[in-house]
Amino acid sequence: MRIAIDAMGGDGAPGVPVQAAVEALDQVDGDFDIALVGDPDAIQGELSAHKHPEKRLEIVPARDVITMDDPPVASVRAKPDSSLVRGVRLQESGEADGFISAGSTGAILAASILILGPLPGVDRPAIGALLPSAADHPTLMLDVGGNVDSKPHQLVQFAHLGHIYIQDLEGRESPRIGLLSIGEESEKGDELTTQAFKLLQDSDLNFVGNAEGGDVISGDYDVVVCDGFVGNVVLKFYESVAGYVAQLISRNVADAAANIDLQSVCRVLDYTEFGGAPLLGVDGVTIICHGDSPARAIRNAVRVAKHSVERNMVEHLSRQLSRLAQVEA
Amino acid sequence: MRIAIDAMGGDGAPGVPVQAAVEALDQVDGDFDIALVGDPDAIQGELSAHKHPEKRLEIVPARDVITMDDPPVASVRAKPDSSLVRGVRLQESGEADGFISAGSTGAILAASILILGPLPGVDRPAIGALLPSAADHPTLMLDVGGNVDSKPHQLVQFAHLGHIYIQDLEGRESPRIGLLSIGEESEKGDELTTQAFKLLQDSDLNFVGNAEGGDVISGDYDVVVCDGFVGNVVLKFYESVAGYVAQLISRNVADAAANIDLQSVCRVLDYTEFGGAPLLGVDGVTIICHGDSPARAIRNAVRVAKHSVERNMVEHLSRQLSRLAQVEA
Repeated sequence: MRIAIDAMGGDGAPGVPVQAAVEALDQVDGDFDIALVGDPDAIQGELSAHKHPEKRLEIVPARDVITMDDPPVASVRAKPDSSLVRGVRLQESGEADGFISAGSTGAILAASILILGPLPGVDRPAIGALLPSAADHPTLMLDVGGNVDSKPHQLVQFAHLGHIYIQDLEGRESPRIGLLSIGEESEKGDELTTQAFKLLQDSDLNFVGNAEGGDVISGDYDVVVCDGFVGNVVLKFYESVAGYVAQLISRNVADAAANIDLQSVCRVLDYTEFGGAPLLGVDGVTIICHGDSPARAIRNAVRVAKHSVERNMVEHLSRQLSRLAQVEA
Repeated sequence: MRIAIDAMGGDGAPGVPVQAAVEALDQVDGDFDIALVGDPDAIQGELSAHKHPEKRLEIVPARDVITMDDPPVASVRAKPDSSLVRGVRLQESGEADGFISAGSTGAILAASILILGPLPGVDRPAIGALLPSAADHPTLMLDVGGNVDSKPHQLVQFAHLGHIYIQDLEGRESPRIGLLSIGEESEKGDELTTQAFKLLQDSDLNFVGNAEGGDVISGDYDVVVCDGFVGNVVLKFYESVAGYVAQLISRNVADAAANIDLQSVCRVLDYTEFGGAPLLGVDGVTIICHGDSPARAIRNAVRVAKHSVERNMVEHLSRQLSRLAQVEA
């Protein structure tokens, strides 16, 4: 198995992705290689600072870079020799089994859809976020990627994508699916959610009803399904709250010992701890990391990508969604 | 001036609202009376435990109670002698200038709209929430009350309501208005927000652009405008995060001294500190408190209600929205 990493994506590139690759080879168990995709000289320069098993690490040259300012879809077409496009293409050609990037989310999404394609039965691939919850396992919220103005049946597709992901990656049988809404009762919500509620109720998923804003991280749901507008707002809000709380606490807690404990709290609130956001519903394994991901986050994403491949997640997603499409047809 | 308090609304009724009334008379400056609306015996029983200036506190009898389980609109019609309906009616008859309740939000909203009526030019009154922010003043987010499937021009009305509220109540000139969305650029967002963006840009408000989820509590915006679906989700999420963070911290910080400091942090995160959520766009002053409000929150709501009356907020709202309606016509 080989996992490709975009060596040029993210604020800390190429240093951070290269470090993450070396750490993953050392710390993630199992038989796998890594392909670092990007400018060979820059990658080699970073690698010289690290000891690593050379046989398990290949550099795949890519001379161009898609920046955060590049328009996503246009840049995927205009920059075929970018690390991002080359990295996604490695799955198309069978040279890699998964791809991780901390580059432009929009471009990763666009490249994955254009090159790998959506799975049969998937209208719109969705980005999932694993949110730290009050329970000892994270909650998968999807979509958080900006699939706006979703239709009710698309929320049901998201639910199926999340169902398989949690089963395969977290090993939880019969994941509890919640529909993000503004009241417990089925008739509470907007037009989208009240219609999606009925569809989810008629599905064979373990749909446990509406989840309100206060339930998202309660640990009572394994998957929370929503349109990408509200999902993205909640995700970004959550990230900002963690920083805000840390700021408030450091203002109030001068004690150094307490500060050390706070680091562990903030790490729990750091959802990159769970290894990035999976793009679900494309014909391949794509994991999107934050632009400011530390090496730890990208290293964890390697573990998630590896598990996704080992557990045949894409095949399971494909089977589930094809079945769903047949039922509907 | 007289402020009415629903003595039967909220988890701690009648004890908490009665205590809040007594505290407000003692601690809130200025020339005002309080009317406690509800079961006279129950209120009298609670009052006997408190010293209070009898001349400034009147009991207005109401024999019925609207519970959290009652259907909002139907119960307003079915229970004319409830504390909630009597309390709102006191403004209609001129016997009070404002009303505060920690009862059913839906019923308070319904009673205020049915009895006081919306202001001219307001399609849908909105509930605002004052969120603790990274700055030294809160951010007003509206609507958080469940006005779902809003139209673009209704978000513009919310912006005008928020503008006047922040000017009158917080004394901030030319409040910075943000539109909750999922990207900075005007074309980012869903159909609702991209259309509302244009309308806000053409308005004479100080519209500073889209606010992403991570910007809501940054302190960079005085007012964040959104549909009630996403607003309600974010509000409830925020409340739950505060509790979750407190839980994480108490797991990690055993030190008693640190625990004391944490109380102040959690109080800052407690948005009831700002005195409840104003219902904006009805012809009167209605303030909605949380069901589990402590006396402090209701006491603060008295201060907010009093300021709203003193500063002629309803007249200003009315003028602003009528002007807006004329421009559009």
